[in-house]
Amino acid sequence: MAYVRRLFKSRAFSTLPATPTPAFPGEYPNAWMKTAYPGPRSLELTKQLGKVQHAGMVHFFVDYKASQGNYIVDVDGNRYLDIFCQIASLPMGYNHPAIQAAIQNPDNLALLTQRPALSNLPPEGWTDMIQSSLGAVQPKECSEIVTLMCGSCSNENAFKSAFIWYQTKARGGKPPTAEDLESSMHNSAPGSPALSILSFQGGFHGRLLGCLSATHSKAIHKVDIPAMDWPVAPFPRLKYPLDAFAAENAEEEARCLAQIDAILTAHNKTKSETSEVAGMIVEPIQAEGGDHHASPAFFQALRQLATDHGVAFIVDEVQTGGGSTGEFWAHEHWNLSNPPDMVTFSKKLQTGGFFAKPEFRPVEAYRIFNTWMGDPVKMIQLQAFVDTVKGDHLLENTRITGDFLLKGLHALATSYPDLVSNVRGVGTYIAIDFPSPAIRDNLLVKLRQHGLQCGGCGDRALRFRPALVFQPRHAAETLDILDQVCRDHRKE
Amino acid sequence: MAYVRRLFKSRAFSTLPATPTPAFPGEYPNAWMKTAYPGPRSLELTKQLGKVQHAGMVHFFVDYKASQGNYIVDVDGNRYLDIFCQIASLPMGYNHPAIQAAIQNPDNLALLTQRPALSNLPPEGWTDMIQSSLGAVQPKECSEIVTLMCGSCSNENAFKSAFIWYQTKARGGKPPTAEDLESSMHNSAPGSPALSILSFQGGFHGRLLGCLSATHSKAIHKVDIPAMDWPVAPFPRLKYPLDAFAAENAEEEARCLAQIDAILTAHNKTKSETSEVAGMIVEPIQAEGGDHHASPAFFQALRQLATDHGVAFIVDEVQTGGGSTGEFWAHEHWNLSNPPDMVTFSKKLQTGGFFAKPEFRPVEAYRIFNTWMGDPVKMIQLQAFVDTVKGDHLLENTRITGDFLLKGLHALATSYPDLVSNVRGVGTYIAIDFPSPAIRDNLLVKLRQHGLQCGGCGDRALRFRPALVFQPRHAAETLDILDQVCRDHRKE
Repeated sequence: MAYVRRLFKSRAFSTLPATPTPAFPGEYPNAWMKTAYPGPRSLELTKQLGKVQHAGMVHFFVDYKASQGNYIVDVDGNRYLDIFCQIASLPMGYNHPAIQAAIQNPDNLALLTQRPALSNLPPEGWTDMIQSSLGAVQPKECSEIVTLMCGSCSNENAFKSAFIWYQTKARGGKPPTAEDLESSMHNSAPGSPALSILSFQGGFHGRLLGCLSATHSKAIHKVDIPAMDWPVAPFPRLKYPLDAFAAENAEEEARCLAQIDAILTAHNKTKSETSEVAGMIVEPIQAEGGDHHASPAFFQALRQLATDHGVAFIVDEVQTGGGSTGEFWAHEHWNLSNPPDMVTFSKKLQTGGFFAKPEFRPVEAYRIFNTWMGDPVKMIQLQAFVDTVKGDHLLENTRITGDFLLKGLHALATSYPDLVSNVRGVGTYIAIDFPSPAIRDNLLVKLRQHGLQCGGCGDRALRFRPALVFQPRHAAETLDILDQVCRDHRKE
Repeated sequence: MAYVRRLFKSRAFSTLPATPTPAFPGEYPNAWMKTAYPGPRSLELTKQLGKVQHAGMVHFFVDYKASQGNYIVDVDGNRYLDIFCQIASLPMGYNHPAIQAAIQNPDNLALLTQRPALSNLPPEGWTDMIQSSLGAVQPKECSEIVTLMCGSCSNENAFKSAFIWYQTKARGGKPPTAEDLESSMHNSAPGSPALSILSFQGGFHGRLLGCLSATHSKAIHKVDIPAMDWPVAPFPRLKYPLDAFAAENAEEEARCLAQIDAILTAHNKTKSETSEVAGMIVEPIQAEGGDHHASPAFFQALRQLATDHGVAFIVDEVQTGGGSTGEFWAHEHWNLSNPPDMVTFSKKLQTGGFFAKPEFRPVEAYRIFNTWMGDPVKMIQLQAFVDTVKGDHLLENTRITGDFLLKGLHALATSYPDLVSNVRGVGTYIAIDFPSPAIRDNLLVKLRQHGLQCGGCGDRALRFRPALVFQPRHAAETLDILDQVCRDHRKE
């Protein structure tokens, strides 16, 4: 792959910034395409898979053994630079030696061989495992740590915790009455109360039935599935670059906050709506919905609204958590005086779960429970991740690489103003927009044909979700491929 | 532990039946209690865990390295015979050599090191992995195989598949309209339709919000959590032993079937109810709710009712699946002429997921989807399990051991008619009742104090959920401990 580094001829990009992070051991020098995309072997395997399940979502079949660091290798021998990273769930690239070592450590064999029912029968070192991994990145005041399966499962258990907290508060701390218990068995009030979770237009919180009622990113996720009658509020649609539209953006955020206040008033104060809102859930950056940002001031005001209306403030860090914004949690950028009540996580952390303030622990046992309550295998991987983030300065690496990538994308937008717009992001958690869904979808395929494994979000965005081992040289290669594909597109 | 084998003095129990299954290599000879239960180290660790999460569900802390076969060892050095097996999720005992070997196989390292987004980026051998493990135990006509996370996740995705199938049928096979798509984004009809899943009193299908609306086993799981307004039907409450109450039981089943028919008629034919029922979900044996059985004739009639009312027939084999009834799937005992539309699984299979008839595959991509869609680590374990079930004749072992255990429990009920009743089950999937919830809870602790790790279900049942490597000698030891504890209780 011999792209001319057009963008990098200019002085601003002639040298790559240094980062304190070591290069990924044994990583490939660059992307390299051996066949067309998708390759013939991938196509054949996709056809085979189609015999047992829907195979219409396959990008390509992967040779996970051959994949290394930021490069994913397909079954046709094509090597892609990966800025999508398993839908933002790969923390430190492929075959990271620290994770390999943890998996191969004979001390971990017993936990890899059987999966405990963690709340009933925890392994000897379980509390230490939680404290040294999740405890090491615990958000302020959220001393309660619950491990779970996946992002949806984490959000739904946070919802359940909010409902239990809200009803317990309403009863003045007393346990449920006999009538509550009895009626709940028939899905009826008062035991099954008309409570809701407030969510946002464009938000994504998963696809299980409760989460799906709080998800509003794409209709194909929701249509034909019955939903809880839960309220939906507007989320700001800002203009980028943010500093060029400061006044308009502030106005847009004020508009949304006023509507959120009105919704919460209708549900919880005047009670003109049928449900009371027990919690609100928000992503620090609306990811699946199209990488929509809002300002720290917006989130500070939102947090205050939650407090004012007696509503749990749940921050969904399933996609933003784990360091790619340059802080371990994206909400750290907000500088809140009153921290979130709950923070949910999954993806890069491998384990699902949530952090909560102590008052969200139910009094009674077995209210937040399932068979497995997480998985020690994922905690072993998480420990290696958390240790390496610190030891290899991966947050600093992500900040330096992200700044460099952002600068390059701004230059790209200047070179292709008809094609690339709304460059936005923090750390390497970045997106750009193309003019239309059709052009974006077409360019996603072209980018893969040129060796960039990537994914979209919203209608017309390309999202950057590289691993934390993504370094300036990978950012430069990404920019080169983008430049090439944009240039080719212009010629068409 | 020197129990007098009182029960086994009689001729019927003087010799243990032979099974074709090899003894578990290196297994302990028996349970052995070194300290009181719970031991001092477990109590100390429970207190520590209580600082980060609710620790009120802990039985004891486990030394998973030292546990072997049917014996679980706690951190105080106590060794319990385990008939609970991680809430029925441990397939072949602790540290089974076939699973250890699979985990340590260097060919599997890459899949243990990173978790793929399986629907987008499957590993090279993915279709083969599915076909040689799940495909080898696939229920009749259910050629569609979807892997997922856990039991709840599997049931909710089966519900979603039923809703999509039902609405697609209602539209005559056409895709959703623009109005459907648009309205679904606001949780409103027609895109978010008033559809429901019929479930049964005493049923348990998980604790996520959709599943929880179909769960009716214990109020503490449900209270304070909002529910979907879904219908609940009666499930037979039979008298045991079944053959002694044939006429009464047939009447009870007919009563339930008539009510189920009436509910489905009201929802789907006369439409006097607000929702249409898209699917029904049933456990072959209601487990969490108290091990309630029904006859093959009942399930044959239930399946027919589903067909007659145009409703998907979903069999939840999360707890019953994986061989402990003596067949790999419990519904194989029913001899249905028209197989289930979907069969959900998790627990012993390690991976969650469901099988479905081909018409339940959505036409459009991304309707049944999440980031991971299962986990190759669990498929590696499942492959070892499925191969060993066959190679070591574990189903036959379970049938032989289960018959022996049942016979012994009937003898126990004869010895302690005031204490033990309603002996019931198939294979080793067995339960007995004690006179009251208080006595049952007290005896669960006593049994652990005597080295039997066990769990209850319903109000007053003890459930037997041993692994498939549970053999007659373990059944004999179980009976001895039960005998001892019952004898002691009588003296109190």
